[in-house]
Amino acid sequence: MNVARTVRIDLAYDGTEFRGWAAQRDPSVRTVEGVLSEALAEVVRESVKLSVAGRTDAGVHARGQVASFRTASPRTTGEIQTFLNGRLSPEVSVLSVSEATDGFDARFSATARVYRYVIDTADVPDPFTGRFLWHRPGHLDPAAMRRAAAGLVGEHDFSSFCRHPGAGRTTVRDLQRLTVRAEGERIEIGLRANAFLHQMVRIIVGTLVRVGEGRMPVDEPAVILASHDRARAPKAAPAGGLTLQRVVYGRR
Amino acid sequence: MNVARTVRIDLAYDGTEFRGWAAQRDPSVRTVEGVLSEALAEVVRESVKLSVAGRTDAGVHARGQVASFRTASPRTTGEIQTFLNGRLSPEVSVLSVSEATDGFDARFSATARVYRYVIDTADVPDPFTGRFLWHRPGHLDPAAMRRAAAGLVGEHDFSSFCRHPGAGRTTVRDLQRLTVRAEGERIEIGLRANAFLHQMVRIIVGTLVRVGEGRMPVDEPAVILASHDRARAPKAAPAGGLTLQRVVYGRR
Repeated sequence: MNVARTVRIDLAYDGTEFRGWAAQRDPSVRTVEGVLSEALAEVVRESVKLSVAGRTDAGVHARGQVASFRTASPRTTGEIQTFLNGRLSPEVSVLSVSEATDGFDARFSATARVYRYVIDTADVPDPFTGRFLWHRPGHLDPAAMRRAAAGLVGEHDFSSFCRHPGAGRTTVRDLQRLTVRAEGERIEIGLRANAFLHQMVRIIVGTLVRVGEGRMPVDEPAVILASHDRARAPKAAPAGGLTLQRVVYGRR
Repeated sequence: MNVARTVRIDLAYDGTEFRGWAAQRDPSVRTVEGVLSEALAEVVRESVKLSVAGRTDAGVHARGQVASFRTASPRTTGEIQTFLNGRLSPEVSVLSVSEATDGFDARFSATARVYRYVIDTADVPDPFTGRFLWHRPGHLDPAAMRRAAAGLVGEHDFSSFCRHPGAGRTTVRDLQRLTVRAEGERIEIGLRANAFLHQMVRIIVGTLVRVGEGRMPVDEPAVILASHDRARAPKAAPAGGLTLQRVVYGRR
């Protein structure tokens, strides 16, 4: 008999055609967890329960998602990776499969998540990159967005920037970094936090865009943050511009 | 009454979900020409006959495709562009719409076409760029491919590298440039010719890959060229790696 061990999977995906990470009750709803755990069950010949670092929403992408599971299968990590990449559609790539130290859990061991949101302000969208950004023609002021962003960094109750706070759960998060960078006609917003609330990144981006358009004062986002009132924040930016870049374990 | 004029359209598209450029008899078959001429008819309020520089095959992409048509519509070029980009799916972008000089024809006025083919030799495919390249894991020797390529440049009868030569039509083309460049784990093949035969680029790429794999001698492609025998060339490389980069009018 084989001893159960913990396996870590690093993966990237184009989330456009998925209804998010989390498997749903209706098995006809296509999710990343659904297709991955189905393929995994075939190669390890037992059903697996995946833990994941970032439960990405419908349409959100990942370059450095991390999942883990326990298994007693004798399959090597190399065999698992080869099988998965042969079996999964080209929208999902298994970047690596590795043995994790005992007690490792992709979700609970993660110390931070890093996301990136890209806005394309050009008049005409680019079909080659359009799946991975929000095409929103018209000028945005990155300097104003940067000043507004500074008012959100730190450990705060982010309930104003959360769609569905779980009842009785804390809405305090430590937003360690929030950067705004202009690259030609693109605006790239980088975020790092210990963890994010539901739609927190996209509501923050929607708010900063309002500032960048000149339709909201630069100090208003910090006022909305302090109000703890979701109704005061603008609507979330579209999912397609958002990518989970990487997950941090330990200090780096 | 308005005088008929010639309008030029520059466009880019992700060809993955199209059955190529050319409209087909069955209107349920989705083609770039089909969706574009349908949208154009709506804005100029008459049916249009499009001329195009590169009749790309199913799954082939374009960054700088050029089409033209004659119309008596009073719509400005700006109005036409705005309408088309609002109406077409995000896979197609109209980069510009401009008045052409009388007698301009996107197909017959073109003096050269520039294509690029990208091969990804990495073990694991990248879901963010995978639609626009051929994922073919395993080493290729770019120096050998480059030497083989040199034997194909120039004005030749390329019938060995053509899938469906039209009966009685010339198969002589002037291949002005054929470059092979290694960029990390990618191989980029650049081609410029006065015009290309059906599947000519992809059959040339399939042949160079055979050389890069060490499964064909470096001087064999030139021998295949001289044989005028399609049966001697390897099969065409997949469509997804191919992009029409630009069309040349005049000398540049």
